[in-house]
Amino acid sequence: MRGKFISLEGGEGSGKTTAIQFIQQWLEQHSIPYIMTREPGGTPLAEEIRQLILSPREEKVNDVAELLLVFAARAQHLAEKIQPALDEGIWVISDRFLDSSYVYQGKARGGDVAVLDQLSRWVVGENKPDATLLLDVPVELGQERVVQRQHQDRLDKESLSFHQKVRDGFLERADVEPDRVKVIDASQSLESVKYQIEKQLVQLNNAWSGIS
Amino acid sequence: MRGKFISLEGGEGSGKTTAIQFIQQWLEQHSIPYIMTREPGGTPLAEEIRQLILSPREEKVNDVAELLLVFAARAQHLAEKIQPALDEGIWVISDRFLDSSYVYQGKARGGDVAVLDQLSRWVVGENKPDATLLLDVPVELGQERVVQRQHQDRLDKESLSFHQKVRDGFLERADVEPDRVKVIDASQSLESVKYQIEKQLVQLNNAWSGIS
Ligand SMILES: Nc1ncnc2c1ncn2[C@@H]1O[C@H](COP(=O)(O)OP(=O)(O)OP(=O)(O)O)[C@@H](O)[C@H]1O
Ligand SMILES: Nc1ncnc2c1ncn2[C@@H]1O[C@H](COP(=O)(O)OP(=O)(O)OP(=O)(O)O)[C@@H](O)[C@H]1O
Ligand SMILES: [Mg+2]
Ligand SMILES: [Mg+2]
Repeated sequence: MRGKFISLEGGEGSGKTTAIQFIQQWLEQHSIPYIMTREPGGTPLAEEIRQLILSPREEKVNDVAELLLVFAARAQHLAEKIQPALDEGIWVISDRFLDSSYVYQGKARGGDVAVLDQLSRWVVGENKPDATLLLDVPVELGQERVVQRQHQDRLDKESLSFHQKVRDGFLERADVEPDRVKVIDASQSLESVKYQIEKQLVQLNNAWSGIS
Repeated sequence: MRGKFISLEGGEGSGKTTAIQFIQQWLEQHSIPYIMTREPGGTPLAEEIRQLILSPREEKVNDVAELLLVFAARAQHLAEKIQPALDEGIWVISDRFLDSSYVYQGKARGGDVAVLDQLSRWVVGENKPDATLLLDVPVELGQERVVQRQHQDRLDKESLSFHQKVRDGFLERADVEPDRVKVIDASQSLESVKYQIEKQLVQLNNAWSGIS
């Protein structure tokens, strides 16, 4: 049977990387074969593209160039890592995926949604995630969590209003595709977040197994 | 007055980099301000993208990923280097530009022309070169010239039939847009090539200056 593809989405500091560990534990308890990956990145070439996108640089980065870099990395990631794994029955858990492009390059930076839709059709097509867990937190809380970490990259340095657009953008994605995008209240304790995620995984797995 | 944008096109070893030197001499004789540039590349970020595209690597490079990388570099090149120069009245001479994408990613690798057209509309729009000089040589002659050079990159290593498609692809581009794309017989001596290029530059410059 084909593996399932689950993406984690949310703003900086919402808890995606933390949540992935909960998913990992659950998959191991259920003896489900899986790989963890992330975007932008996931293959050697795609990780090199990630470096280009995220490195602070003096040169102004053109919005269209950034958008095309993100989708170039995604095309490589899908062709060389995600699809081969799913074909072998391996589940794929990705820290960010397509929704982040709609939110960052689209909603937050004002990129043309028609362009995003067209790139999504070319690059992703039928290969959208089977489920997306959206870690939702108020902007201030996400920022508090982020400032406690050392390293800040180019995107972290954006303004609060930018991060507000990001949060709103993700919630819109959940409104548009509620069957795929499941909202997790990530302002709660880690224990609560873990519980919410496991509940979603059980429901999804039952639905995918034909158990209602 | 806005500067003029001239691209050099042709297969490997056709003589583009050599021809650029003839153009440079002509521009200096006429005291025309200019910059030289190349694709993929032309700005720090675009040159980093060029490295990603041309470096030999173990990982298979997905065709769509390669196409998007090329257009990402082009978007950056246009926004940060070509357009600002033209706006200041500086001529821009580019070693390769849009036609190479149609020929390499389209004709030679079988990329979808509708996708190329769409990317071209988004990224290049009205900013096509004012003129393109196509250096045309038989494939065998181009290859003979190339093997005399040291360094071979990923594209150089393609088969003869690939290079034949490249030559045919460029000639098709000249058929479709004869007003923009001028074919130079680059199988001739360097002196003859220099003469043909200067003749084209004089004609183009007269046309652009309103002299008939
Ligand atoms: N529910 C939570 N309660 C308290 N702290 C949390 C919670 N979730 C995550 N954290 C902490 O907040 C910080 C950011 O979490 P994490 O790195 O998982 O976020 P992220 O969404 O992956 O961020 P980024 O987008 O920057 O990668 C970490 O220090 C993490 O331990
Ligand atoms: N008309 C010519 N007659 C003889 N030799 C030539 C001619 N044009 C170029 N050459 C030689 O052929 C080699 C390739 O030329 P050049 O580097 O200009 O080609 P190119 O089109 O820029 O190649 P590439 O696509 O690999 O950059 C060089 O060694 C150059 O000196
Ligand atoms: Mg993270
Ligand atoms: Mg050259």
